[in-house]
Amino acid sequence: MIDSNFYKNTGPYTIAQLSKMMDASILNCDPNKEIIGVAPLHLATASHLTFYHNPKYVHLLESTQAGLCIIHPSIQDHVPANLGLLLSNTPYRTYAQLAGIFYQPKPSQPMGIHSMATIAATAKVGKNCSIGPCCVIGEDVEIGDHCVLEAHTTIHNNVKIGSHCYFGSHSVVSHSILGQNVYIKCGAKIGQKGFGFDMSAEGHFSVPQLGRVIIEDDVEVGANTTIDRGASGDTIIRKGVRIDNLCQIGHNVELGDYSILVSQTGISGSTKFGKGVIAGGQTGFSGHLTIGDNVRIAAKSGVIRNIEPNTTVMGYPAIPQRDFFKQQVYLNRLIKKPAAVEETKC
Amino acid sequence: MIDSNFYKNTGPYTIAQLSKMMDASILNCDPNKEIIGVAPLHLATASHLTFYHNPKYVHLLESTQAGLCIIHPSIQDHVPANLGLLLSNTPYRTYAQLAGIFYQPKPSQPMGIHSMATIAATAKVGKNCSIGPCCVIGEDVEIGDHCVLEAHTTIHNNVKIGSHCYFGSHSVVSHSILGQNVYIKCGAKIGQKGFGFDMSAEGHFSVPQLGRVIIEDDVEVGANTTIDRGASGDTIIRKGVRIDNLCQIGHNVELGDYSILVSQTGISGSTKFGKGVIAGGQTGFSGHLTIGDNVRIAAKSGVIRNIEPNTTVMGYPAIPQRDFFKQQVYLNRLIKKPAAVEETKC
Amino acid sequence: MIDSNFYKNTGPYTIAQLSKMMDASILNCDPNKEIIGVAPLHLATASHLTFYHNPKYVHLLESTQAGLCIIHPSIQDHVPANLGLLLSNTPYRTYAQLAGIFYQPKPSQPMGIHSMATIAATAKVGKNCSIGPCCVIGEDVEIGDHCVLEAHTTIHNNVKIGSHCYFGSHSVVSHSILGQNVYIKCGAKIGQKGFGFDMSAEGHFSVPQLGRVIIEDDVEVGANTTIDRGASGDTIIRKGVRIDNLCQIGHNVELGDYSILVSQTGISGSTKFGKGVIAGGQTGFSGHLTIGDNVRIAAKSGVIRNIEPNTTVMGYPAIPQRDFFKQQVYLNRLIKKPAAVEETKC
Repeated sequence: MIDSNFYKNTGPYTIAQLSKMMDASILNCDPNKEIIGVAPLHLATASHLTFYHNPKYVHLLESTQAGLCIIHPSIQDHVPANLGLLLSNTPYRTYAQLAGIFYQPKPSQPMGIHSMATIAATAKVGKNCSIGPCCVIGEDVEIGDHCVLEAHTTIHNNVKIGSHCYFGSHSVVSHSILGQNVYIKCGAKIGQKGFGFDMSAEGHFSVPQLGRVIIEDDVEVGANTTIDRGASGDTIIRKGVRIDNLCQIGHNVELGDYSILVSQTGISGSTKFGKGVIAGGQTGFSGHLTIGDNVRIAAKSGVIRNIEPNTTVMGYPAIPQRDFFKQQVYLNRLIKKPAAVEETKC
Repeated sequence: MIDSNFYKNTGPYTIAQLSKMMDASILNCDPNKEIIGVAPLHLATASHLTFYHNPKYVHLLESTQAGLCIIHPSIQDHVPANLGLLLSNTPYRTYAQLAGIFYQPKPSQPMGIHSMATIAATAKVGKNCSIGPCCVIGEDVEIGDHCVLEAHTTIHNNVKIGSHCYFGSHSVVSHSILGQNVYIKCGAKIGQKGFGFDMSAEGHFSVPQLGRVIIEDDVEVGANTTIDRGASGDTIIRKGVRIDNLCQIGHNVELGDYSILVSQTGISGSTKFGKGVIAGGQTGFSGHLTIGDNVRIAAKSGVIRNIEPNTTVMGYPAIPQRDFFKQQVYLNRLIKKPAAVEETKC
Repeated sequence: MIDSNFYKNTGPYTIAQLSKMMDASILNCDPNKEIIGVAPLHLATASHLTFYHNPKYVHLLESTQAGLCIIHPSIQDHVPANLGLLLSNTPYRTYAQLAGIFYQPKPSQPMGIHSMATIAATAKVGKNCSIGPCCVIGEDVEIGDHCVLEAHTTIHNNVKIGSHCYFGSHSVVSHSILGQNVYIKCGAKIGQKGFGFDMSAEGHFSVPQLGRVIIEDDVEVGANTTIDRGASGDTIIRKGVRIDNLCQIGHNVELGDYSILVSQTGISGSTKFGKGVIAGGQTGFSGHLTIGDNVRIAAKSGVIRNIEPNTTVMGYPAIPQRDFFKQQVYLNRLIKKPAAVEETKC
């Protein structure tokens, strides 16, 4: 199922081997049976490993032909009797771990520096890096060990990059300091000047954008996402943050540890996120807001006020999700009972 | 009107020639008159061809100076008496066809492979291709005949591309199989890993993204649009789909034949579109949804539930468009009659 | 505070010097005191210049340790007694001017044409330009004096560019005429063909996109923003317009002088803006609309009808902002009084 042109299969593995790797119990299956790879519930054959995690797909669990299925122990009595099971309290993570063992990405380019890369004489590149064709690395850049810069990556002067970082093709980084294990997808633009000017009818006057972008360890930045550098302080993306494609991060924004931004989210200047904030797709945030720890913002919401920690909001302007759904119920009732509408006028 | 720096004019053509090419009737005009080019209604002179299609511009039809106007036969009695007419049941398409005859794009670069392109030894490039400066083509890539790769196109290892495909500058393709006549606009990013991880407060764990992007024939992908590859299955864009700029297509999404995504639309992972779906600009879709054939989604709507075929929805959460407009009427009535508001409290 | 790796500090300056440069009064301070740089209110020390402009940060004004603070004269009696003041009727602009004096960006690349740039023999490049590695400049392109093209800028055939223009890395321009002092951020894509086709269930038929993009003087275009060329007329961005990141400008759109588009705004084909229009983040506009002078559109709004000059609108469909907030008040009241909801049914 997995195209061997793109991924190398390290298997097969016996069910006993898989069970041992994960220190997981197995049920209803022959430990010596060989599993050749992973597949989703509806495509898996008797030689495949699959997993069940999202209740939306319970109908596929009923009919799967998989040879082995990773499930949470709590549902082990509710699956087809003949389905081989590997039990895990975190089935999705266990799947991710085993899939990572089964398949190794084929390297996109060899180690070393391609002859068509342009590296400034004062740049320092660490050990075991792979720098593809048409990469451009500016003066006094420092790149740690084990980094991959795909073709056409552009790193401007003085940027500092930790070890084990990845840069997708056509990513650009300027005015930035990056930690370790940062993964920048293709086309992301990081460090350009922000949208700052003094407005007037006779012409807007640009405000110098003098800050930087600080990206801590283990951050992931999506394809074609843009992160502006700070105006005088810095724009800061703290450790473990995950940013999806086509997001916009304005100048001086701060995103707390492990926050998640789903695609096309936009955050205006100087808004600060606490830890573990989850912003759904196409959400928007006004500038200068404080969003508390563990706030969840439903997709497409627009946030124009500060939000207390541990709350879930929705709509535009965003309100507590429960209130949003109450409004919807009420609006739906109105349009289904035209008489009621008339009565409100009497 | 059309800048000859960018397009070569193959005209002039007589009205008789144009009429013959389209097998179309003409009215109120001299067949021997020469037409030198196309222009919109308000800019056309007596030597220009124009067309009328959108009722929003009926006032411009009244005053146009065009020498020839393509219209639907049903309105031929409602146009200025002295306006030369070319009748067509599909005026917009007839205009497109004639405009395509009148003007030929000037080639952006010569045939052949530019000396500053980097092509892996194992890559296969078809006949009559044009590959611009700074293009990078990886190992075992296959590119069909008559393809154009504008400057800075990046095609990663093992990607397969049919004939007659176009890649705008700075487009990137990896982990993908493309059919024929696929048109990728500049800056589009196709095949990067999707936004998949197991969340936890101690750090999110990436799920290997092992699938591909499959793009069938005659698809168009907009500038700076992003299409993630599948997680274990594939992301599939079926034939004739048109995707506008800055759209986001998540992993394992499937778009049915001839579907249309207007710009800045975002589709979360594993959502499936039927055939002929039209998603307006800035629409958003949750993951794991099924959108039926011929569904229309009004611009800016947010879809969080499955949608039955042949329906039109609007709003967030998206509801049938008729219901959405009823809600608007009701809300408008309320704010115009403050007394009524008070009464609901009594 | 400002990282000297990225910006050169030209100071220090005495307060007397700063006051003289701006022709501004000072209060509560020693004119001979030296100021070493700028900083935001909460980070400034006794050697820093800061400014107060946004009432959201009045609490930071109370506690700032800054050596000198730019404020509007109207609030000079409401600031801490010991705070050194520089008075200005336009504090934000005065700050911008002084910050621009204090800090000079370090050049990203030397003057001249990099050896890894690809410049067509027929292209003309003005005096004192800096053209970075991997730039590609097509046939008959004309570039004025004092332009900077960062690494990987791509300018296609026949594009004309005025003097003092800046192109960020990986920007692409085709089919366009640009004025002077145009600033294009990295990754912007300008001039690709628009989203124009005649729809049908058997396949959409592309309409030739024969126009150009015209960008007047002093325009700024955001990172990864896309601007499609006209279909037969031109797409026009008039003088002084500021466009943020990830915006989409459809074919034949016109933006009036000094209009502002905040990030992720999308404008469908042929919509015309008057002068001084301000579109908030993530706003969307249907095609073929007329938006009057000085219209303001709140963030996330969707505009589907023409808008009269000098109005402020909000919501989707966008309505006058006052009406929008009335609706919100009403909806909030409803959900807080469930009894009232019941009564509307009786």
